[in-house]
Amino acid sequence: MGKSPHSKMKIVIIGAGNVATHLSQALSKQNEILQIYSRNISNAEILCSKINGANPINKLQDIRKDADFYIISIKDDAISQVVEQIAHINDSAIWVHTSGSVPMDVFEDKVKNYGVFYPLQTFSKNVELDFNEIPLFIEASTTEAAEKIKTLARTIVKKVYDADSKTRKQMHIAAVFACNFANHLWTIADDILAEKNLPFDVLMPLIKASVEKIGQVPPKDAQTGPAARNDLKVIGEHLKQLSGDNKQIYQMLTDSIIKHNNE
Amino acid sequence: MGKSPHSKMKIVIIGAGNVATHLSQALSKQNEILQIYSRNISNAEILCSKINGANPINKLQDIRKDADFYIISIKDDAISQVVEQIAHINDSAIWVHTSGSVPMDVFEDKVKNYGVFYPLQTFSKNVELDFNEIPLFIEASTTEAAEKIKTLARTIVKKVYDADSKTRKQMHIAAVFACNFANHLWTIADDILAEKNLPFDVLMPLIKASVEKIGQVPPKDAQTGPAARNDLKVIGEHLKQLSGDNKQIYQMLTDSIIKHNNE
Repeated sequence: MGKSPHSKMKIVIIGAGNVATHLSQALSKQNEILQIYSRNISNAEILCSKINGANPINKLQDIRKDADFYIISIKDDAISQVVEQIAHINDSAIWVHTSGSVPMDVFEDKVKNYGVFYPLQTFSKNVELDFNEIPLFIEASTTEAAEKIKTLARTIVKKVYDADSKTRKQMHIAAVFACNFANHLWTIADDILAEKNLPFDVLMPLIKASVEKIGQVPPKDAQTGPAARNDLKVIGEHLKQLSGDNKQIYQMLTDSIIKHNNE
Repeated sequence: MGKSPHSKMKIVIIGAGNVATHLSQALSKQNEILQIYSRNISNAEILCSKINGANPINKLQDIRKDADFYIISIKDDAISQVVEQIAHINDSAIWVHTSGSVPMDVFEDKVKNYGVFYPLQTFSKNVELDFNEIPLFIEASTTEAAEKIKTLARTIVKKVYDADSKTRKQMHIAAVFACNFANHLWTIADDILAEKNLPFDVLMPLIKASVEKIGQVPPKDAQTGPAARNDLKVIGEHLKQLSGDNKQIYQMLTDSIIKHNNE
């Protein structure tokens, strides 16, 4: 992969969900995945079948004590309890979880070298993606842990950032606006088109072009449309066609665009 | 191109802006562009240099009278006046404009066969795009005009839809939500990231994945995030971090997602 020399890390993956699936496959290219744990053994087996040398387990007490890294990639609510049960087995390894929302201190007083290893992407087990392009956010308890986590991160991605819990939360809020809320606007657009029996497909070329544009210029500079032009005639006509929540959303986002333009 | 047999249409293009540029290049593959008019002769010359046989003109009185199609692709405000000045030269041809907002009746009482030929896409002169994928919306004054316009449309795109002025307006509102407003949410996300000195780039893989998803499932089914999960704890934490317009927008879109989920 043209990366700097790197001694293979021995890794145990706790979890076989969407993140664990993509992460373990990416990591296995330049590292050694010893085991993959899942409460449901068949999930662990399916994932291990794609990874050379990895053994599926479904009992926490079967976890090997000789790994360099323990990566916990399970539901947010379950992380603390699993850490409680297993962190004692190896105090010299690096322990990380992959959650954007759980603070790093879930490991505090359990092990010395720990941190967070958070890939900012939405994962589906059966959808291939280019892991290399995903930004990875790192937090660590010690300088030693930070260095080792970053070295590991660079075996699978190009972009590694430092991010403490506050920064991860801020990033999550940004992602809610950029993805969850944008998706909801697409739902509203779909409803509006459906009133005229038009398929959502008709908007896809326009949406794709909008995304391509913000890959090239900052979104503020990419803004177009009646609000950006302060075209009160068109805005008024649109508001006349809308009602309820959609009308309020149209008004509020239009006002916000106009304010941003005047800043 | 594997399309059904089609006798080459002789076309005059009025305008040399973004839409005219892409449209005339796409049309020239299976049709004959006679002339391209622009008030600024050098714009017409630049465009004609890319199109075999097309002649640049900058005087309306130089427009040839023997075309099958006259396509007016200029600023909305200027259409009516140009129609007034030139439509008398050929009453047996088909006359169309390419605007999403201008009603078809701008041609009324000037010519018999007329209509609208509206490609739903955002165009930039120097950005290549696959015209074939763009949905084209058609309106026509007569059955004869409708058939000829559709035949011409099918020489350049795969998807042709009927859309009267009301439908085009509705579509424009949908596009404002799906593109202009989505872009504004990306601007807000950029502002939020900037507070932690993070570049907007970190969100691009997530945004691209969101767009890929709505190419496969309806946006309503693609909705994820705290609002979709009705995760009041996370929503509350996010609202605490926000203020002003962004807080109101977060609250309003969250409420709207929750309502949609309960429909």
